[in-house]
Amino acid sequence: MELKSENACFGGTQGVYTHKSRATGTDMTFGLFLPPEARDGMVPVLWYLSGLTCTHENAMTKAGAQAWAAEQGLALVFPDTSPRGPGVADDEAFDLGQGAGFYVNATEDPWARHYRMWDYVTEDLPELLFDTFPLDPERQAITGHSMGGHGALTIAMTLPERFRSVSAFAPICHPTASDWGQKQLTAYLGDDQEAWDAHDAAFLMRERGFDGPMLIDTGTKDQFIDLLMPETLMQEVGQRRQQAVMRLQPGYDHSYFFVASFMEEHVAFHAEALYA
Amino acid sequence: MELKSENACFGGTQGVYTHKSRATGTDMTFGLFLPPEARDGMVPVLWYLSGLTCTHENAMTKAGAQAWAAEQGLALVFPDTSPRGPGVADDEAFDLGQGAGFYVNATEDPWARHYRMWDYVTEDLPELLFDTFPLDPERQAITGHSMGGHGALTIAMTLPERFRSVSAFAPICHPTASDWGQKQLTAYLGDDQEAWDAHDAAFLMRERGFDGPMLIDTGTKDQFIDLLMPETLMQEVGQRRQQAVMRLQPGYDHSYFFVASFMEEHVAFHAEALYA
Repeated sequence: MELKSENACFGGTQGVYTHKSRATGTDMTFGLFLPPEARDGMVPVLWYLSGLTCTHENAMTKAGAQAWAAEQGLALVFPDTSPRGPGVADDEAFDLGQGAGFYVNATEDPWARHYRMWDYVTEDLPELLFDTFPLDPERQAITGHSMGGHGALTIAMTLPERFRSVSAFAPICHPTASDWGQKQLTAYLGDDQEAWDAHDAAFLMRERGFDGPMLIDTGTKDQFIDLLMPETLMQEVGQRRQQAVMRLQPGYDHSYFFVASFMEEHVAFHAEALYA
Repeated sequence: MELKSENACFGGTQGVYTHKSRATGTDMTFGLFLPPEARDGMVPVLWYLSGLTCTHENAMTKAGAQAWAAEQGLALVFPDTSPRGPGVADDEAFDLGQGAGFYVNATEDPWARHYRMWDYVTEDLPELLFDTFPLDPERQAITGHSMGGHGALTIAMTLPERFRSVSAFAPICHPTASDWGQKQLTAYLGDDQEAWDAHDAAFLMRERGFDGPMLIDTGTKDQFIDLLMPETLMQEVGQRRQQAVMRLQPGYDHSYFFVASFMEEHVAFHAEALYA
């Protein structure tokens, strides 16, 4: 593992690291914010999964999360959104290939070789992080934005024993029925739509739910709201009587101005679960 | 004036506008954050001047200032750092020409025609802003980062009746004696070093000072600290008995991670002066 940069930040440290990933077979870069408390012992971890076109860097520089993580004594992990590099398959579209891994293990060519973001985020990167840094594996929570909100929700519902709480900013809620989903799931997983269901938050809510608190914010002026389909997840949350706070925020759009505006509440929400 | 974008942000609005500037003779773009209170009446204004290579956008997306401005009911103005465009003189170096206006009115060719950032920030843009938006010209404060800290300090000391308070993050303090200054002042203002003094914060502190509170933060690990020369301004502040808080922050560097870490305190500092 190689340290790429390190900046003092809100009394803690914002680091960027590159490592060889077994899951993707490529070099992967991630950001890790350690709060001041990490100097004295293990701290809880909040994972932040980013959206389409993002790298590890966007949320790290634009979401304003470190201020609140420092206040609450939480570490923040910012993984990349796909494998990258000259030998890695890509597509001209912004919403397929590099920057658009969708947090799945691809089974179809040409993606299957490197696009294993599910394994990267749930196995490979956790192993490295908990081996290397003073992070408490017993206290993890997960959040994300847009495609990353989809990732956070599907991962949390699949591994509920790992995450004490889950939240999302403008998540893709029902990718199996949306143009943000059908295209990518077809490319990565093939035409068999049964394989898609494991990566559909609305479907997982119907089948499994989540054993803990859930917080979801979407802006009423989100320019992609028809692709996100928050109503599908709200319906399933209601049907299941899932413990959840589902909010539509008046006037907010899909940008990081929206994410930053509600970051304090999301971090405080997770801190409450992590310190319970 | 043309609205380029508008995003809901912390209950207020982050707008980006382009207008024809009389001062520079070019189109200029700026960011303006209006807090929720601006819907009901005039609000105070905090100017934020950015550093080398920045546009109006860097601080707007990375400094985390809107959270605190919304809390305090302040507007934030984010001007660009130079004129721009195909007809505007430029240089291959990152620290001269476009993105590096240094907040002076150039007198030398080829810069004199468009590089009038002093007039832009002190005359042209204020006129437009106070004519157009619910901003209170009687309640203004100014801050900035690096080259923008230099701009904030020199403008505030030259127009002390306009600004109730001044602060800076890692400002260039003594450009007439630094490689961040001598090169640009020579290019923009010519070889006559007397013309430079009006744009040197340490010199202005010796000659004039500032009639109000001043707050300056610089990181002890700032990679450009030898170019910033904070010690020169600290010495003049001490000599003058200027009301000031001069801080060297242990471990912090020159990045926006540093700026964001202390933004809450700077905004609160200005709010105290603006609401006094």
